[in-house]
Amino acid sequence: MNSRLSYFTAGREGIWSIRDVREITGKGLSIEKRLNITTLPPAGNEKWTLRGIRSNERYTTTEEKSQLIEKQEDLGRPDSKFAVLIPIKKTEEWWQLSQDRRREIFEEQSKHTSTGMRYLPAIARRLYHCRDLGTNEPFDFLTWFEFSPGEQDRFDTLLSELRASLEWTFVDREVEIRLQR
Amino acid sequence: MNSRLSYFTAGREGIWSIRDVREITGKGLSIEKRLNITTLPPAGNEKWTLRGIRSNERYTTTEEKSQLIEKQEDLGRPDSKFAVLIPIKKTEEWWQLSQDRRREIFEEQSKHTSTGMRYLPAIARRLYHCRDLGTNEPFDFLTWFEFSPGEQDRFDTLLSELRASLEWTFVDREVEIRLQR
Repeated sequence: MNSRLSYFTAGREGIWSIRDVREITGKGLSIEKRLNITTLPPAGNEKWTLRGIRSNERYTTTEEKSQLIEKQEDLGRPDSKFAVLIPIKKTEEWWQLSQDRRREIFEEQSKHTSTGMRYLPAIARRLYHCRDLGTNEPFDFLTWFEFSPGEQDRFDTLLSELRASLEWTFVDREVEIRLQR
Repeated sequence: MNSRLSYFTAGREGIWSIRDVREITGKGLSIEKRLNITTLPPAGNEKWTLRGIRSNERYTTTEEKSQLIEKQEDLGRPDSKFAVLIPIKKTEEWWQLSQDRRREIFEEQSKHTSTGMRYLPAIARRLYHCRDLGTNEPFDFLTWFEFSPGEQDRFDTLLSELRASLEWTFVDREVEIRLQR
């Protein structure tokens, strides 16, 4: 079975070199040499590890989903030498909102999906969920972005657009882990 | 911290006696003496254990939520001597549907929330999520119902209504664990 759960482990192993770790909101993570992605938990000599699970979509409509499928390309393209892992935790206030209110903030007010869609297929994206893996997860989501080095400026613009949105006022902790293959 | 994660363990301990275990769809679970509910995993001598986590609402709108809050009462009422635990797994087809399509089936077509609401406050209900606890969970949800013995016929009617809905055509496995305090 193709495991939905992945571990992102910082240490001395893995195909991704860590170029930078930036504290965006709240407590950051230490800068280490490499990031290793595995489907089994790390052996225990890691500096830090994050875990996330691929799950069903929470806000995407049928129409948005078919547009995404049409525009997006797979991870692992030969040109995608840069990646960025962004763990995020949202506030308790966010999680207490009803589904329709979260959707409204996420898309109608913050244009989360349609903003990301403008950067497809150049900037590929995959979402992992953490919040319901257990009681005490440090983050709610991990988002993985992959692109060619020439797209870095556009990626930075994408981040600025998202961070200026109403949705981001519900972000409690955010770290940016910049990687190179 | 009030743990969101609970374990439902069948064996010889716990305040709930198991009256019956019914296989509704797919593989059942063995009938044991008692069900114990804990926030820590069982020691290891259990017959079977289920785990689930309380999480944000996935389909409830702001209006539905305020109606629910107004009508519902807490778990643990002195009269609520009967409980039923219903673990459910949905099909892969369900999880591949977009959020708007799942909501449409769940409420506009199957009237899941409004059906449950008609039985409030008599039949109290709490939902636990399992699907994103790990890669290989046997169920997607656990629903806990509590009511006084005099409400059992109405509870059975509630179950029949839900099981006749379009949403239930996406149910892959369902077990009914009838309990008495």
